[in-house]
Amino acid sequence: MTTDQPQVSFQTSPERYRHWRLDLSGSAETGVAYLRLDIAEDGGLVPGYELKMNSYDLGVDIELYDATQRLRFEHPEVRAVVVTSAKDRNFCAGANIRMLAQSSHPWKVNFCKFTNETRNGMEDATANSGQTYLAAVNGTAAGGGYELALACERILLIDDNSSAVSLPEVPLLGVLPGTGGLTRVTDKRRVRKDRADVFATKPEGVRGKQAVEWKLVDEVIPKRQWDEAVAERAAAAAAESRRPADARGIPLPPLEPVRTEDEIRYRHVTARLDREQGQVEITVAGPEGDVPDTVERVHELGADFWPLAMTRELDDLILWLRANELELGTWVIRTKGDVEDALAFERVIAEFSGSDWLVNEIRHYFKRVLKRLDVTSRSLIALIEPGSCFAGALLELALACDRQYMLDGFLEEEAEEGEPAQIVLSESNFGVFPMSNGLSRLGSRFYGDDDYLAKLRQETGRRLQAAEALEFGLVTDAPDDIDWEDEIRIMLEERRSLSPDALTGMEANHRFVGPETMESRIFSRLTAWQNWIFVRPNASGPEGALRRYGTGRRAEFDRKRV
Amino acid sequence: MTTDQPQVSFQTSPERYRHWRLDLSGSAETGVAYLRLDIAEDGGLVPGYELKMNSYDLGVDIELYDATQRLRFEHPEVRAVVVTSAKDRNFCAGANIRMLAQSSHPWKVNFCKFTNETRNGMEDATANSGQTYLAAVNGTAAGGGYELALACERILLIDDNSSAVSLPEVPLLGVLPGTGGLTRVTDKRRVRKDRADVFATKPEGVRGKQAVEWKLVDEVIPKRQWDEAVAERAAAAAAESRRPADARGIPLPPLEPVRTEDEIRYRHVTARLDREQGQVEITVAGPEGDVPDTVERVHELGADFWPLAMTRELDDLILWLRANELELGTWVIRTKGDVEDALAFERVIAEFSGSDWLVNEIRHYFKRVLKRLDVTSRSLIALIEPGSCFAGALLELALACDRQYMLDGFLEEEAEEGEPAQIVLSESNFGVFPMSNGLSRLGSRFYGDDDYLAKLRQETGRRLQAAEALEFGLVTDAPDDIDWEDEIRIMLEERRSLSPDALTGMEANHRFVGPETMESRIFSRLTAWQNWIFVRPNASGPEGALRRYGTGRRAEFDRKRV
Repeated sequence: MTTDQPQVSFQTSPERYRHWRLDLSGSAETGVAYLRLDIAEDGGLVPGYELKMNSYDLGVDIELYDATQRLRFEHPEVRAVVVTSAKDRNFCAGANIRMLAQSSHPWKVNFCKFTNETRNGMEDATANSGQTYLAAVNGTAAGGGYELALACERILLIDDNSSAVSLPEVPLLGVLPGTGGLTRVTDKRRVRKDRADVFATKPEGVRGKQAVEWKLVDEVIPKRQWDEAVAERAAAAAAESRRPADARGIPLPPLEPVRTEDEIRYRHVTARLDREQGQVEITVAGPEGDVPDTVERVHELGADFWPLAMTRELDDLILWLRANELELGTWVIRTKGDVEDALAFERVIAEFSGSDWLVNEIRHYFKRVLKRLDVTSRSLIALIEPGSCFAGALLELALACDRQYMLDGFLEEEAEEGEPAQIVLSESNFGVFPMSNGLSRLGSRFYGDDDYLAKLRQETGRRLQAAEALEFGLVTDAPDDIDWEDEIRIMLEERRSLSPDALTGMEANHRFVGPETMESRIFSRLTAWQNWIFVRPNASGPEGALRRYGTGRRAEFDRKRV
Repeated sequence: MTTDQPQVSFQTSPERYRHWRLDLSGSAETGVAYLRLDIAEDGGLVPGYELKMNSYDLGVDIELYDATQRLRFEHPEVRAVVVTSAKDRNFCAGANIRMLAQSSHPWKVNFCKFTNETRNGMEDATANSGQTYLAAVNGTAAGGGYELALACERILLIDDNSSAVSLPEVPLLGVLPGTGGLTRVTDKRRVRKDRADVFATKPEGVRGKQAVEWKLVDEVIPKRQWDEAVAERAAAAAAESRRPADARGIPLPPLEPVRTEDEIRYRHVTARLDREQGQVEITVAGPEGDVPDTVERVHELGADFWPLAMTRELDDLILWLRANELELGTWVIRTKGDVEDALAFERVIAEFSGSDWLVNEIRHYFKRVLKRLDVTSRSLIALIEPGSCFAGALLELALACDRQYMLDGFLEEEAEEGEPAQIVLSESNFGVFPMSNGLSRLGSRFYGDDDYLAKLRQETGRRLQAAEALEFGLVTDAPDDIDWEDEIRIMLEERRSLSPDALTGMEANHRFVGPETMESRIFSRLTAWQNWIFVRPNASGPEGALRRYGTGRRAEFDRKRV
């Protein structure tokens, strides 16, 4: 096992891609972009394996994530995205097995989480951006390769008497498909569950008409009609899009965080890494300067428009910390800035997200970043202090936390000239940024009490100070200035003393109350089972299937059923 | 770790209880039974621990399960059940920690599964039998002790300035509450999730008014009013029951299976244990003899009434195999008998389950046993052959399986004078025996296709032979006599070659498609997380919290967050 994993950056751009080719050559005319997987065997993120057969590692998926984001923001003309392979007879072989076999448990789990988020993002683009993803499976799609196709709205499979779709994880590797395969096969594609069982235990997979009959793919297309049929299906999907004509994309320039041993500093977001205490103190700065009053001005500002700039930074920070700072188990989240400014900016989002494609993208992007927080295996604590701006959309950051503490009054060392801490509810808190279980964070907090939610909704726009916020149940506690420092310190120390694994399981259960969706099931059920299977000797032990794969020796299993 | 676990029998009866006292002294008059927990410290099922502080092990729960069953069948006069403690100031301390620390992983998981099923059964009695469970928490209820209370409809807590409810698993043991605690706190009792987080990390728990304010209990009652108030609340619950007056219970005599090295034989159910092949061949015999035509006759037959007798035997067999035969990873399920007889019996159930308490109990009992199959971590394969009687309710046995194979024709060695294999749909297959996700097994099989379900419903009562059953999608495959033996043999061999852990995870995902309920979430999400946490060194390693508990030494954690 490699315990000394490298530091991973999630920043890239198309000209640096080694594994994907983003083809926009015809997109202005047809509205169709092609994303071609062409994995460089020697381009693994970590030494020790070759990315054969279009198999991927985290580095490949970082590029895919970048491409999906740029398609949404930089390419409004794109209304359909064809995901296909640049390699002959080989669509994608899924996650690289040697990579998995040599990876530590946390690496595997974090890798699966990110790949799941990216695939959910493709579905989100299809549902909410008018960018429909189609999988043009022009060769065998195995495991994660088929799961990549499953995240697309339609799956076209080439009929060449050999190309198949398969989920060979259970029979070949002794693990589950890790990126939603089992769930999407039954819940999205509605494959009959006994067939799903046969399929997921059949290493060679299914091809041709049977793949259509079992609903594993939407259609099979003969090789000679392939290119034309794919283009036609993509054009048909593009034609249904409501993305505007003649819109101009906005470029996403590189983020340039300044990283030191104990700090990561972006323009609006900073993180102080406290290795001694095992925690990160994240501060999100609210907007400064004039609020755009027209959509044109928002487009001019582009990536500098505060909601977008802040969201990008927060996204990058979350990904960085999750991958690189495993021992910092508690994230303390603060905001700073002016409450009125924050509300003014969010009114721009509210006003135009229905009518302007870019503002719509920003809304859904912030939604996705909040969802990343929801599934982050760190304890999340919001501290609401004087000078903070937890208002409306930014209040979602606090509501995503496991607990919220609000200072009632002022700390002694502070000047009391300012105002005490305040939070403000807005329409943003009632369904604009749903969690993966389909509920708003308030709906999840007050699960089952719709009357109370309606009552809270009448409080939108009011500045609520600590006592009132506590009364309304919007914060966990509201210590006064005398108790604040001790209570917060003791709370954080207690948290730190608990088992990191038990916290992960407990938080995953508490954060998602009530209903489930396909997405929440993938994260909560499938991921939990996979975590277990990953650490069992039958998969990861010296004689386990994951370690023995490709050695020519069969795995030896402990036959006890658990 | 004890690897040499004893064989466990799930058969007991009140006169043999060592840990519970079933008090029916006033039930004829008041309709209220008292179940008093009075655990014998020296009565552990396995050597190596003492059951101090009213803490339990599997043996204690086997008695509880027996009591809940007898209350439903033997005591129709009971309309409310008060679960309380016979020990002063100590309601129940939950699962015994030393027992958990010394138990193997499979033992822990199986123990949690059974305790969960029993608690779900208490909720089922409350919902469907007019037997409302109330928890009279007359002392501290910690961990599994509080979870026992959570399974009750109402929780009364004594106000004595010391008795609290708590879930100390995370802070003290580094594991999750294992019997639905996290889920019931948020989803059933609607405790706000940040408060749930505080509660589940607070080893001393919550008591008094705060416990009511946080919705952890329904009311706190001063000590001097305790007995009277409990009796009053129980009487109020009993008054709402629709259980009939003057009904007479039917006794549940001991089952007397004959066990040999390779066979377990009940009257209607037999199991052949094939240790070489790692499988069990279960055969459920259909009814024989006259079908009762009146409810009176059903009551006269009592435990000899075939549907009840068969259900009891199947229940006992499932529990036995799950606990004692871990290496027999595939269960092959057959029926034998006359299709018409099976349908005649199930018409009795259908006709009277709405009007007769006993028939209603039998229906819900068979439902619960089917649910046990659904969550059984074994591959389930139905073989439908000539002479079988997979009709209506018995067809649910096949539909609960991961796959269904139906012989098209006759095996050569058989006389062809009989009829070929047939299955018959009845109303029983459309919601009478729902799965824990709220769907019927057909609704789960054809998830999302209500039109098709409506179409299938028109086929009830028809005898479907193999080709038609295959066409309707009711079986996975229908090999003819030439292929049958090879196909089944190869299929079973392939199954046996797969990783037992991956199969468990895969089956748990496939069996429960679509929606979730609190019950399905407990099994699918909470259980999966707990499985993971149980095997992690932070819990079960030599320095883990579970192993270090009570030694005076703190656990040492790997701080990496996964």
